[in-house]
Amino acid sequence: MAKRVRTTIVAVALLAGTSLPARAQEPAALPISAQLYTVRNVGTLDQQLATVAAAGIKYVEPFRFNGMTETPAGEFKSLLEKHGLKVSGMHVNIGEVIENTDRLVEYNKTIGNTRLIVPALPASITPKSKAAWQAMGQLFATIAATLKPKGMQVGFHNHTVELEVYDGKTGLEWFAESAGPDVIFTVDIAWAARGGQDPVALLGRMKGHVWNIHVKDNAPAGTNTEERGFAIVGKGTVDWDRVVPAARDAGAIFFTLEHDLPKDAALVLKEGNAYIAPRVGKVLGR
Amino acid sequence: MAKRVRTTIVAVALLAGTSLPARAQEPAALPISAQLYTVRNVGTLDQQLATVAAAGIKYVEPFRFNGMTETPAGEFKSLLEKHGLKVSGMHVNIGEVIENTDRLVEYNKTIGNTRLIVPALPASITPKSKAAWQAMGQLFATIAATLKPKGMQVGFHNHTVELEVYDGKTGLEWFAESAGPDVIFTVDIAWAARGGQDPVALLGRMKGHVWNIHVKDNAPAGTNTEERGFAIVGKGTVDWDRVVPAARDAGAIFFTLEHDLPKDAALVLKEGNAYIAPRVGKVLGR
Repeated sequence: MAKRVRTTIVAVALLAGTSLPARAQEPAALPISAQLYTVRNVGTLDQQLATVAAAGIKYVEPFRFNGMTETPAGEFKSLLEKHGLKVSGMHVNIGEVIENTDRLVEYNKTIGNTRLIVPALPASITPKSKAAWQAMGQLFATIAATLKPKGMQVGFHNHTVELEVYDGKTGLEWFAESAGPDVIFTVDIAWAARGGQDPVALLGRMKGHVWNIHVKDNAPAGTNTEERGFAIVGKGTVDWDRVVPAARDAGAIFFTLEHDLPKDAALVLKEGNAYIAPRVGKVLGR
Repeated sequence: MAKRVRTTIVAVALLAGTSLPARAQEPAALPISAQLYTVRNVGTLDQQLATVAAAGIKYVEPFRFNGMTETPAGEFKSLLEKHGLKVSGMHVNIGEVIENTDRLVEYNKTIGNTRLIVPALPASITPKSKAAWQAMGQLFATIAATLKPKGMQVGFHNHTVELEVYDGKTGLEWFAESAGPDVIFTVDIAWAARGGQDPVALLGRMKGHVWNIHVKDNAPAGTNTEERGFAIVGKGTVDWDRVVPAARDAGAIFFTLEHDLPKDAALVLKEGNAYIAPRVGKVLGR
């Protein structure tokens, strides 16, 4: 009986074109989010969320590192409601994920988030071999198994160190392959390109592991140095007409705008969203 | 040339009876230490250290979990000097080891400690398979490689969950084997026995990975429940005349007294030291 039901669900999912695991969670609004790191210098959290909403974006990805001042969950929830925003995921340091699991789960249930994304590995545990990347995958699989009964997922977001190649594959791929289907990955497109990868090819190889991409653009080499070399999305070197469909094919259900050091965060989000929204709409058939 | 020098060092070490890696670090005073968790309810740190010193013990093993109030390193150093104590190792949560590595190294250099021991794994990352224990070993090996150039070591202390058996070996053994020689282990004798192991046999199988044991005794089953079932060392069920030589054979250079919930911590340390010191002296030939 159980087997027959499962077969039916899979069949329906295939018919609907939703065979990739993450697709079942697809949101109703156009799934463009903003990583709040982009607006961290824009006054209060209230002002930061207002800036995101003013850009026409419906989702946010907060970040919370160890030692940061934390907005009480109830207050965060009220502010999200005030601005008509939902949470697509949250960046949290791995030390906090493993030590303060129950508290994080409680906090995120309150603000309506189910995804804890580790933004980077501390240098102390950054793998330097295929075996160490595979071991990291096992560690994240253990965390995922802990979180699953609590209705939460764990994931990882790359920079460039994860793109070093061991035995013919990037560390990121060994990591994802070993982690298995319950660990979800953000491919940061700008960092992927800086790490020497063709983002489209990398997305192809990460198929089935990707839940979102960071929609972040690189300025031509040597320019925009006062903005860490990043550009407004669509004005940089990334070919988004290729990347957005590739991200979709890889399983992405969210497209999350980010800029690490914008001079004008409001402009970056507004122009970035205006550029990416029609492209996301097109691949979603909306 | 490099090879010849190394061969010579190994030969000298063998002649001196110090073939196990940890032996080179052997201290001059009788290497009996006290885990400060034992005296945590004895007033101030000053009073806690006085209690250890009054028992005739020369070393302490502090503990520092995330979120604990921390004594400034300079103040800790002064108090250690006041009481004629040195630090054999420190218990620190893994989240703190990986996130606050540099700060921990600085702190421990000030108080003269070179060993960071993870007292337990959070439930979120506790392995439940041979592969996951091996992956944990890889993770600790990465941490050890990070710490080595800073003159520090990382280690692990068991409870009972690490003694569950997968494919014919305990998780602890898969962990140690995968971690390799740079990761150091405390075998907690009382927890080993409660985990269903013969401590002597376990020490034999952990040979070369052990830097100390926790000298902790179990009361007969069902007794001393108000003290979590632990006993003053020598008055419980552990056969220390077998355990101490076995620990030495496994590579132990420290013997660290601990009681998790003593009614009278001063008595526990004084009687425990009086019982264990001659046995430790005997195996060291002092």
